[in-house]
Amino acid sequence: MTLAARDLRPVAYDAHRRELKLLDQRRLPDAEKWLGLSEVEPIAEAIETLAVRGAPAIGCAAALGMAVLAQRMSSAAVPGGCSEFHAAYRQAHERLAATRPTAVNLFHGLDALRSRLGELSEAPIDELRASLLACAQTYLAEELQRCTDLSEHGAPLLPDSGGVLTHCNAGALATAGLGTALGVIYRARELGKKFTVYADETRPLLQGARLTAWELQRCGVPVRVLTDSMAGWMMARGVIHAVIVGADRIAANGDAANKIGTYALAVLARHHDIPFYVAAPSSTIDSHLADGSAIPIEERSPEEVRRHGGVCMTPAGTEVVNPAFDVTPAELITRIVTERGHFAPSALPA
Amino acid sequence: MTLAARDLRPVAYDAHRRELKLLDQRRLPDAEKWLGLSEVEPIAEAIETLAVRGAPAIGCAAALGMAVLAQRMSSAAVPGGCSEFHAAYRQAHERLAATRPTAVNLFHGLDALRSRLGELSEAPIDELRASLLACAQTYLAEELQRCTDLSEHGAPLLPDSGGVLTHCNAGALATAGLGTALGVIYRARELGKKFTVYADETRPLLQGARLTAWELQRCGVPVRVLTDSMAGWMMARGVIHAVIVGADRIAANGDAANKIGTYALAVLARHHDIPFYVAAPSSTIDSHLADGSAIPIEERSPEEVRRHGGVCMTPAGTEVVNPAFDVTPAELITRIVTERGHFAPSALPA
Repeated sequence: MTLAARDLRPVAYDAHRRELKLLDQRRLPDAEKWLGLSEVEPIAEAIETLAVRGAPAIGCAAALGMAVLAQRMSSAAVPGGCSEFHAAYRQAHERLAATRPTAVNLFHGLDALRSRLGELSEAPIDELRASLLACAQTYLAEELQRCTDLSEHGAPLLPDSGGVLTHCNAGALATAGLGTALGVIYRARELGKKFTVYADETRPLLQGARLTAWELQRCGVPVRVLTDSMAGWMMARGVIHAVIVGADRIAANGDAANKIGTYALAVLARHHDIPFYVAAPSSTIDSHLADGSAIPIEERSPEEVRRHGGVCMTPAGTEVVNPAFDVTPAELITRIVTERGHFAPSALPA
Repeated sequence: MTLAARDLRPVAYDAHRRELKLLDQRRLPDAEKWLGLSEVEPIAEAIETLAVRGAPAIGCAAALGMAVLAQRMSSAAVPGGCSEFHAAYRQAHERLAATRPTAVNLFHGLDALRSRLGELSEAPIDELRASLLACAQTYLAEELQRCTDLSEHGAPLLPDSGGVLTHCNAGALATAGLGTALGVIYRARELGKKFTVYADETRPLLQGARLTAWELQRCGVPVRVLTDSMAGWMMARGVIHAVIVGADRIAANGDAANKIGTYALAVLARHHDIPFYVAAPSSTIDSHLADGSAIPIEERSPEEVRRHGGVCMTPAGTEVVNPAFDVTPAELITRIVTERGHFAPSALPA
């Protein structure tokens, strides 16, 4: 189990082809297909259409994507230095920044590379390209280390047996590797805990049914999939002993945005006196936001709700709502697990 | 709107063909196809596979189904009277009684006909058949009247504007006509109330997305479909002002079994201080059960959870859970609306 959980990396660099490699999560669990991308529009679309998804993984794809794009941007000198490069870089940065609004990691990933670029204004173009690539690779390595560390901190919180509920996919597939909520689950299982994972299917895009079930099966963790509507009843029946989820953005006060449906789970967990944990690297914390009310919530295409397995199940013309995320208030969160330890939401380190 | 809501009857008798007619709800909203059934196995399968569903409609299909079957049962005399008929009747009764365990209306429908049969032991076979058919038709007419009356009692409970959330389908399609929760909604709209209906899609079988959206659109009631996971967030955002659902069986203390996901909505409604109404004819009350713990909960095929639009979305071999119903405790229910009025769950008339 250890190896299987630790070797899955959904975002990588193909040095031979000088491409961004993404495990195409739209095709899972049926097919393990990798995309090789080296132009801005396909990278932006891969993020928008959820070929890569999960807040930390989006940050990694954006950082590595910018480094890959920089390898091919024209360095033709124009009066005043390599401004053609900088103009192209700025345009690509803005395109990727416009892909998805909620996960703050996207902006952290882009900002890390832009800062490095700013430090290198006088460098020759080859050195600049190499440095951006190294910066992106460091970003991924640090993100992976944060997951490793937070898994260690979170594992003791989970029960020795019984059921642990999770929502969406906060696993290796959602990060640079290992995962946040699932990283904690993997580590707890390594330590000998015997719980079963209950994975909400997570409508509309079924990241739980498709990705979490696939990842956990691959790693030998017992998992049962349920529809999102069943979680409350499983709690009432005493089957669930802890809930652990990831986050897409956490405000300074501990309010946490995550996949739609998370908020309802937190309310249900409180009603049943079940601990509710959020696991996220500190790259997910947006200390500029005082509370969750300012977190932008992405509204996605109505077709995602209308369709099931590609088939439209609602009558023609039916209106739907499709917020992709919700915000769980800090007071419903038992502990937030980061790479620095686990904290009461009101006591998050700045 | 009035006519459209009042003319939809999913269970009917075809006097010309002497068949049970069922609007095939598995095909909605794509196709309005009617089944014509006159043999026990196809009728049982129509109930099991949800061609007809909804507790009151199941009771109607069972009652009318038995009356139709009786038209064709052999009346060959054997020593001791028409016992060939009675043996066939008993066998058919037992087959239909084994179709679905949760909705008590199934048993009420079957019992109504069996009681009539018991009263007619001396009657000639033609009279007996005619009497069973009349009994079933009376059962349907009374069920429709109960929906009409409960709609009248429930309509004043709904808000004048804003949003009303419902789950699954408790409409004309689930009853002899008009509906329970949707009957109340139709009547409230007739009285000039301007709310929008939010319809949970209701995984796994999507009775909300497919049937409730279809019915409400057909009747001109504004409706928005949402995934089950979005209901809590819509409540938090102040969009929902009341929840109204049907029931499949109500215990004497007011505990109510209904489609899986109902319990979670009741907890969420309580958290947000939103009234939670259950609308059901008294044929849904099982006064033999002291509380909800004794209500049998049907566990249905795992394939229903694994599949979306006919496509398997989980990895091969993934375990799933699939309880079709849950039980909402009386203390989470604001009022239970029946044809006799609306009641605190603790004060249901016997």
